[in-house]
Amino acid sequence: MTPPRSRLTPERESELYGAVLDLLREVGYDALTMDAVATRTRASKATLYRQWGSKPELVAHALRHDKPLHMGDIDTGTLRGDFHAMVELSDDSRMERDCALMRGLAHAVHDNPDLLTAFRELLVEPEVTGLHGVLTRAVARGEVAADNPALKFVPHMLVGAFTALPLIEGRDVDRAFLAEYVDAVVLPALGV
Amino acid sequence: MTPPRSRLTPERESELYGAVLDLLREVGYDALTMDAVATRTRASKATLYRQWGSKPELVAHALRHDKPLHMGDIDTGTLRGDFHAMVELSDDSRMERDCALMRGLAHAVHDNPDLLTAFRELLVEPEVTGLHGVLTRAVARGEVAADNPALKFVPHMLVGAFTALPLIEGRDVDRAFLAEYVDAVVLPALGV
Repeated sequence: MTPPRSRLTPERESELYGAVLDLLREVGYDALTMDAVATRTRASKATLYRQWGSKPELVAHALRHDKPLHMGDIDTGTLRGDFHAMVELSDDSRMERDCALMRGLAHAVHDNPDLLTAFRELLVEPEVTGLHGVLTRAVARGEVAADNPALKFVPHMLVGAFTALPLIEGRDVDRAFLAEYVDAVVLPALGV
Repeated sequence: MTPPRSRLTPERESELYGAVLDLLREVGYDALTMDAVATRTRASKATLYRQWGSKPELVAHALRHDKPLHMGDIDTGTLRGDFHAMVELSDDSRMERDCALMRGLAHAVHDNPDLLTAFRELLVEPEVTGLHGVLTRAVARGEVAADNPALKFVPHMLVGAFTALPLIEGRDVDRAFLAEYVDAVVLPALGV
């Protein structure tokens, strides 16, 4: 009988998540196996399954771990300031990696309901909630009308920028593009 | 020696393109082979290569063939009318199929420069040109300021709607969504 194992250290967890994301970028979601993660990280598959339950949950946790943006913490006093603080929080190489992940996941998310659920709960909803805080404060300050119909489409506008640019211009999003897009599209759509 | 073959009939060409798109939705771009197309359509590989040169060109032509929207022909007299005419030209099942194709291609387009080139020349640029006509007429009518910074992002807003909705809401774009998005986001961003 093996002794009960303690939870993984935060360092070890980070290392595992990093390996999962590397594999995801290299081979895509479908070809990513728990075996490959176990081999790459020299962990046992039993540990992986005990800790995360399933491949979609492991992948979603790895994605969430890699995304330390906390939009809800941003509060500069103006909506334009908040959006640009958000852009500043990121950097070009991170955006390039995010684009690679979205590409790698777009098909997989559609074909795997478990991954879609994990992806939405861990990645989409916290960001939508953070964004909601930023927008709620803008409405409270009177910057945006409470019934502005673009309010509910702000996540779509932002995610859309990331996914459309590679298809239209053949290049990944960077900070300069996103800052320009916020000023030219997102704020005017909100009447700011 | 085989006799020189005449060009394919339009019906046969349509049939071939349909088979290519079916395969693309079923297996994705990477797993789509000229062999599989030849088998599915009972054509010879020699015919496929003589007619289209390469897999990326064949795929791009098939995509272009499936997309008979001619935005450049739309001219209702107002920008809002033109956008909604564009939405009306499509239908929900077609949008669902377009979403499936964009998902299937997003990764492939990034990893295959030839496909990206064919995809942009045959699919993106004609649409951007058509859209440019619609927007140019709106500027000429005085509906949109010539220096409105959102003008150059209209393709991004529209493509973004298609790619973001499945990730954020787990569903494909339909006509009702697109009509609402045009009114809530695209037109206000343009100051209309």
